[in-house]
Amino acid sequence: MDDETHAPVTVIGLGLMGRAPAGALLAAGHPTTVWNRTTSKADQLVAGGARLAPTVDDALVASPLTIICLTDYRAVHDLLGANDVALGGTTLVNLTSGSSTQARDTARWAGQRGARYLDGAVMAIPSTIGTAEAVIPHSGPEEDCQAHEPTLRALGTVTHLGADHGLAALYDVAGLTMMWGVLNAWLQGTALLRTAGVDAATYAPFARRLAVGVAGWLPGYAEQVDRGRFPAEVSALETDARAMAHVVEESEALGVNAELPKLIKAMADRAIAAGHGGEQYPVLIEEFGKPGNG
Amino acid sequence: MDDETHAPVTVIGLGLMGRAPAGALLAAGHPTTVWNRTTSKADQLVAGGARLAPTVDDALVASPLTIICLTDYRAVHDLLGANDVALGGTTLVNLTSGSSTQARDTARWAGQRGARYLDGAVMAIPSTIGTAEAVIPHSGPEEDCQAHEPTLRALGTVTHLGADHGLAALYDVAGLTMMWGVLNAWLQGTALLRTAGVDAATYAPFARRLAVGVAGWLPGYAEQVDRGRFPAEVSALETDARAMAHVVEESEALGVNAELPKLIKAMADRAIAAGHGGEQYPVLIEEFGKPGNG
Repeated sequence: MDDETHAPVTVIGLGLMGRAPAGALLAAGHPTTVWNRTTSKADQLVAGGARLAPTVDDALVASPLTIICLTDYRAVHDLLGANDVALGGTTLVNLTSGSSTQARDTARWAGQRGARYLDGAVMAIPSTIGTAEAVIPHSGPEEDCQAHEPTLRALGTVTHLGADHGLAALYDVAGLTMMWGVLNAWLQGTALLRTAGVDAATYAPFARRLAVGVAGWLPGYAEQVDRGRFPAEVSALETDARAMAHVVEESEALGVNAELPKLIKAMADRAIAAGHGGEQYPVLIEEFGKPGNG
Repeated sequence: MDDETHAPVTVIGLGLMGRAPAGALLAAGHPTTVWNRTTSKADQLVAGGARLAPTVDDALVASPLTIICLTDYRAVHDLLGANDVALGGTTLVNLTSGSSTQARDTARWAGQRGARYLDGAVMAIPSTIGTAEAVIPHSGPEEDCQAHEPTLRALGTVTHLGADHGLAALYDVAGLTMMWGVLNAWLQGTALLRTAGVDAATYAPFARRLAVGVAGWLPGYAEQVDRGRFPAEVSALETDARAMAHVVEESEALGVNAELPKLIKAMADRAIAAGHGGEQYPVLIEEFGKPGNG
């Protein structure tokens, strides 16, 4: 390993999501400084070779790169904004969860204080941090992402989303929505099949193949969204809506929850009422892109 | 090819979803008899070598196996039940879309008439019929599925779901729900990212990887459902619910539809109110398994 792979790094915030990155950085050979309000949370990391900074200021000046993992953006501003903490010359990588607006505001604030700023999203569970399985996209200036990529990749798969600091937060909420979308569709199907005595383990591989198959359509469907033209190459929305009514009826007949099928149908019905019945499914982007009745 | 792969077969119903199977059977070398109320829909198949039966009775006696592709179950009963159509000794494979109850009722009715009966679901678009990509699960007696598998596989990938004739209809609605679940989650994410100028084609590969990743969790999560125990190995539902609130807020702040995120959160909130906040996501099967507020 060259010096670059051993760049010193600071981690501020050692909750569940902060301890994992600090541990991964240590394991990758980076001189690692940590700070946490409750110092006992650093005990295991210190035993593993981390240095516990006595103050936030000390933590920030110890490394050219500081990774922030706090509860929310308010905690970030309370900690770094309250007094004369020296941010000049530092690069902050903020992995704290928040909105795209908070990320953009914090980027402006950091810039005013003379710090470089990247906003990242940890799209991973703590146990995968430090492996390629952990997806951690960053948004902000590309050169800052490139400069610190050798350090950041100790945490997982690093991708740069774009210069807009709000992008990591947006990809994060989009990703969460996909996660719950797949899980809820699977639970709905599992609930339907359990009425016939089919156990979840029997249905799961089938559901998995279906989800993977449909996921493969997304790049093609995306072309329709970007062109704003939705020819019914596979099927028309009004045909889909009849099948949706059938899923609602089957769910209700079997005493299974029908709210998800009803929402699916309601959004399609609105698009059909708006004149899109002869177009293909991705035309629903127009419904998803505006405030609804909910 | 041996004789078995050339077994004669009849297809009744030549709408969009009936013509494709008939064409695939012809292409695979099966002597194929077809019948349709509007005979002109058979023209292309007859030009390709199919025999047009003059009556439904003639169509049924022409082959040991008859595939039925009609608009709905009512059409099936109107056609085959109205008069003295001879069903004795025939095997019917009904690919008509309907509910699990209709499938079970029709199986009983066919049995009373002396016919063997399989109920199938075409989980495929017409253009893939005749390729392994077309998934066509069947439910009913396993021996009937096995006996006709050499013929049925000309249509696509044949699987036998179980003896309960209602299973194909249930897998079908479960599969449709997964399809729309993935598509809607993707559209929600696409709508969120478009507010920052990210086009659909840029997000689609990311969404695809996420969906495939989450699909991989399903077999493990299914074990929790089947055990009825949901330890929070990855995260607790009350933690997820905070992230759900964040997705609702971000969607509303950006002027994007928030109905899907709100439904996701509402179901989790109900499970938390029922005392499951410390358990893991699949505990929501209890909400999905009973009628909701919708």
